[in-house]
Amino acid sequence: MQEKGSISIHTENIFPIIKKFLYSDHEIFLRELVSNAVDATQKLRSLAQLGEFKGELGELKVRVTVDKEARKITISDRGLGMTAEEIKKYINQIAFSGATEFVEQYKEKDASTKDQIIGQFGLGFYSAFMVAEEVEIWSKSYQEDTLTAHWTCDGSTEFTLDEPTGEHAKAERGTDVVLHVAADSDEFLEEARLRTILTKYCKFLPIEIEFEGEVINQTQPIWTKQPSELTDEDYTKFYQELYPFSEPPLFWIHLNVDYPFNLTGILYFPKVKDELQFQRNKIQLYSRQVFITDEVKDVVPEFLMLLHGVLDSPDIPLNVSRSFLQADANVKKINTYVTRKVADKLSELFKKDRAGYEEKWSDIGLFVKYGMLSDEKFYDKAKDFALVQNTAGKYFTLSEYQEFVQANQKDKNDQLAVLYATDPEAQHAYVAAATDRGYDVLKLNAVLDPHFIGQLEQKLEKVTFKRVDADTVGKLIEKDEATESVLSDEDKTRLQELFAKAINNEHMHVQVEALSPQDSPVIITLPEFMRRMKDMQRTGGGGGMAFMGSLPDSYTVSVNANHPIAQRILSADEEGGSKLARQAFDLGLLAQNMLKGEALTAFVKRSADLLTAS
Amino acid sequence: MQEKGSISIHTENIFPIIKKFLYSDHEIFLRELVSNAVDATQKLRSLAQLGEFKGELGELKVRVTVDKEARKITISDRGLGMTAEEIKKYINQIAFSGATEFVEQYKEKDASTKDQIIGQFGLGFYSAFMVAEEVEIWSKSYQEDTLTAHWTCDGSTEFTLDEPTGEHAKAERGTDVVLHVAADSDEFLEEARLRTILTKYCKFLPIEIEFEGEVINQTQPIWTKQPSELTDEDYTKFYQELYPFSEPPLFWIHLNVDYPFNLTGILYFPKVKDELQFQRNKIQLYSRQVFITDEVKDVVPEFLMLLHGVLDSPDIPLNVSRSFLQADANVKKINTYVTRKVADKLSELFKKDRAGYEEKWSDIGLFVKYGMLSDEKFYDKAKDFALVQNTAGKYFTLSEYQEFVQANQKDKNDQLAVLYATDPEAQHAYVAAATDRGYDVLKLNAVLDPHFIGQLEQKLEKVTFKRVDADTVGKLIEKDEATESVLSDEDKTRLQELFAKAINNEHMHVQVEALSPQDSPVIITLPEFMRRMKDMQRTGGGGGMAFMGSLPDSYTVSVNANHPIAQRILSADEEGGSKLARQAFDLGLLAQNMLKGEALTAFVKRSADLLTAS
Repeated sequence: MQEKGSISIHTENIFPIIKKFLYSDHEIFLRELVSNAVDATQKLRSLAQLGEFKGELGELKVRVTVDKEARKITISDRGLGMTAEEIKKYINQIAFSGATEFVEQYKEKDASTKDQIIGQFGLGFYSAFMVAEEVEIWSKSYQEDTLTAHWTCDGSTEFTLDEPTGEHAKAERGTDVVLHVAADSDEFLEEARLRTILTKYCKFLPIEIEFEGEVINQTQPIWTKQPSELTDEDYTKFYQELYPFSEPPLFWIHLNVDYPFNLTGILYFPKVKDELQFQRNKIQLYSRQVFITDEVKDVVPEFLMLLHGVLDSPDIPLNVSRSFLQADANVKKINTYVTRKVADKLSELFKKDRAGYEEKWSDIGLFVKYGMLSDEKFYDKAKDFALVQNTAGKYFTLSEYQEFVQANQKDKNDQLAVLYATDPEAQHAYVAAATDRGYDVLKLNAVLDPHFIGQLEQKLEKVTFKRVDADTVGKLIEKDEATESVLSDEDKTRLQELFAKAINNEHMHVQVEALSPQDSPVIITLPEFMRRMKDMQRTGGGGGMAFMGSLPDSYTVSVNANHPIAQRILSADEEGGSKLARQAFDLGLLAQNMLKGEALTAFVKRSADLLTAS
Repeated sequence: MQEKGSISIHTENIFPIIKKFLYSDHEIFLRELVSNAVDATQKLRSLAQLGEFKGELGELKVRVTVDKEARKITISDRGLGMTAEEIKKYINQIAFSGATEFVEQYKEKDASTKDQIIGQFGLGFYSAFMVAEEVEIWSKSYQEDTLTAHWTCDGSTEFTLDEPTGEHAKAERGTDVVLHVAADSDEFLEEARLRTILTKYCKFLPIEIEFEGEVINQTQPIWTKQPSELTDEDYTKFYQELYPFSEPPLFWIHLNVDYPFNLTGILYFPKVKDELQFQRNKIQLYSRQVFITDEVKDVVPEFLMLLHGVLDSPDIPLNVSRSFLQADANVKKINTYVTRKVADKLSELFKKDRAGYEEKWSDIGLFVKYGMLSDEKFYDKAKDFALVQNTAGKYFTLSEYQEFVQANQKDKNDQLAVLYATDPEAQHAYVAAATDRGYDVLKLNAVLDPHFIGQLEQKLEKVTFKRVDADTVGKLIEKDEATESVLSDEDKTRLQELFAKAINNEHMHVQVEALSPQDSPVIITLPEFMRRMKDMQRTGGGGGMAFMGSLPDSYTVSVNANHPIAQRILSADEEGGSKLARQAFDLGLLAQNMLKGEALTAFVKRSADLLTAS
């Protein structure tokens, strides 16, 4: 035996699956039926343009109505209409796509036809059965001398079809789809619910959609127009429509590409109020003006998901599923294209209006850094327009900044030391000490900055970053200089021992240093390496380190040998010296924001007593 | 004309849709084919038990092999096998589910059969074409005197079927499905990739699955057993298998329900290291031991998504889509059942072992509070076992605590004032002042506590919550008492003016109060109402308030008329008095963690000078 044959599908088996599983959201039925109505209307318009339809087009609105009492939703159009024969062909055969056939037939006459047709599979109509226990079609073809066709189906595979005449005939050209809503779909009889669905999916459809007497869509959203026709006001107005109550966007990019894929859209850079307040899922994805989803993961690169706006592409598959998108070649190209466009726009803004660009930096810095960290190609472009800001508020590009601190901040090994504060207010004492010495300090307080620092250290040559409290100011940038100590070595040893005893904490390593008499009596620092390790551990990074248990705190306590208090402590009796040392240490802790809880309460009390006693 | 008829589906139209869109992840093909192989094996076992198959069962492993060079993946079983006739029936007709028919046929003989069959739609086999350009079936039925059936299909709707004999005949009973992997699916030829997929979906299938010589599954995972057969060690071991490198769970609930739906599973309460570190998607959802998803949103209530473990239910639809799940009646019942079980378990732990329960509270408190806030029914159960902890570390139930503070903390309006600290260390001075006065202070420092406080104020009668720094300790709980002032009214006015001038800040409202001489000279407080408004604003709540701009800070500065420094300031010259007032105010700021940046640096310097000068 050797046999060839065709695989067959039994309608009664597959039909329930289509109804239940092809679409994940039941509300999609309305998108599909309204899209069909729009298609039928667009097709008639095409025929009229081609001269194949010579009648009056008249008003071409699509109307959606709901009758809660009668449990009916009706979608009516004044498009092509269908004869009974056409219903047999297009409706009674599931997945025989009318749209495909129509495009085939007319594509040579008018290349733009294809772009105007939404339907792809011919399955959409059957989504009606997700919510309806019975569906009726009343249709009258645009062709002259045709009868009304009336089709009904209760969701089984059986249909009836007749051609009513007289009072039951349909007076006007077009199609009415009537849904008799099923008991488990009551929600779709609510006007508010239907309005929400229509607004979500149909807001920008190219034919007017009327719901309960009101047109709910804009037929020509601005992304379908040429940038030359549009003003800044048009763009900001559209942004307000998409995101009511939002602050105006910083700037935008109008996308328009035909080859090698189709894509139009507008991407907005939002004002970022709070780094942690990002809302992703702010970019809306459309296919020929029909809303598809706002989950654009994989369609735009991760770092651009912080942007807002719309993307419209007929080349993105409608039934969006994640792994499918990832594998789709068009999607990959869109990704690359969008990234390039964003980099170009930023570069242009930077070059054209440096001052304006700097003003926007606090909002766009995060996008740029995120992009640099996640996309090597973007880094290469962005390294020329990424900015850093110092604690005095001045902005620099990366190369400008290296130039700026070159003369003063090279250490004895010819490494450029970039100093930074993660919280200039909390680290004020250290920032002040560094600027007093003529160093510059960057403000790197953004969430991403620790990673950004790591990246810059890898990319820039002979540059290391040091937080401003990583060492006493004299040792932050090691040079071949030394301040002389007014204390003898013996006194220094005594002082060290005295402080160590007064502090009595194994995580506080006391050392005596010859600092300036104007410097603080006690300075507490945490070496850069140690702090980074701890940061990494806290954020759960650093590979297996999380299993090693917490790193102990390990601070350096630098006692200033040249501060007058050193002499006082050495000459006091043991109790008095210890008390003074403890108070000086508390002041060091205060400057490092480390004096807390009971110790702080005791310090405050002691200081209040001191005020009263003196 | 009136016509009735049947809707038809053209295979060549629907087939591409099934291949592309029915499953969102291509990797699913392996789950489907291995599940089919397991089904065929289970069916043969059932027949043997019923006496319908009298031959040797032999080894019943399912084998998966990959030949990268030949671009082939093979899934082999030693189950029922199929004749050419059966292939025509089950394979050539898409969506003619063999499983359904088999169950129908045997359900009266053995009720448990139904539970052992995974296949539901008869569509799974065709998922092979998501990754294969050609699929072959080699099969030999368990029935005697049948020929090998050999079927091939290249993904079009055309198949060939023959019955090879001689050297091409299949020697053993069972089915081999051979996938000739398509060019765009190379990833599935990688052994590591296949192993990952098998481990993900098939780890607990009831028939041994061998991949490259190694069995990859446990055929009897512990949730399929009776709790009475299992030890604590079994549960913790299983937890480690599911979540390697995790800390052991706190406790668990073994679920087992037959009616009105089927559900087995084990839910674990994890140790919570860091409130912000939650990993959701830790509960795995199975259907008859086949992994479906770890996105259980809607299957368990939001607040229980923090739990870990497995749920297995044949009543949850396999092709999980969100809106479908939400509407599914079984899912709703599962939700209610799981919530009840969790509440019962917590109540039991609380009653049986109060000390152990208190030890676990830091880990389970969040679940309980989250549950109370999001589910009214859960609140009603949990209000008896929810705990609060005071700053001394002692735990109370809600009613125990009201009892505990009753005598001391009722204000003159008979309202019970519950005092709390959100950061006992930072609010140490205020906590110390309150406890010195005999008040108790709760520690309410969890992320959810602000909401929890709001809920308790609504639910408990005549109870209000006040943060411990909302007022000076004498006024936190208003009673009909007053401390006498040692200052005349005139001096009080002078002192007020003097401080107001020295502080010179419109957001700091100075008032002179008769506190105890032992209290601080200056106490800075933020009224409870004001702080809550600001918190709400910061977290973006409070409705439209976010548009109102930031609320200004508005602190109360209480100057202690009875502190010795008051006299000193009044008797000093203007400059000296102002300096003293400023220093006393700084100490007040310090205690409230409000002395920062430049002001702190200046304070430290001034204090260091003071130390040296005195």
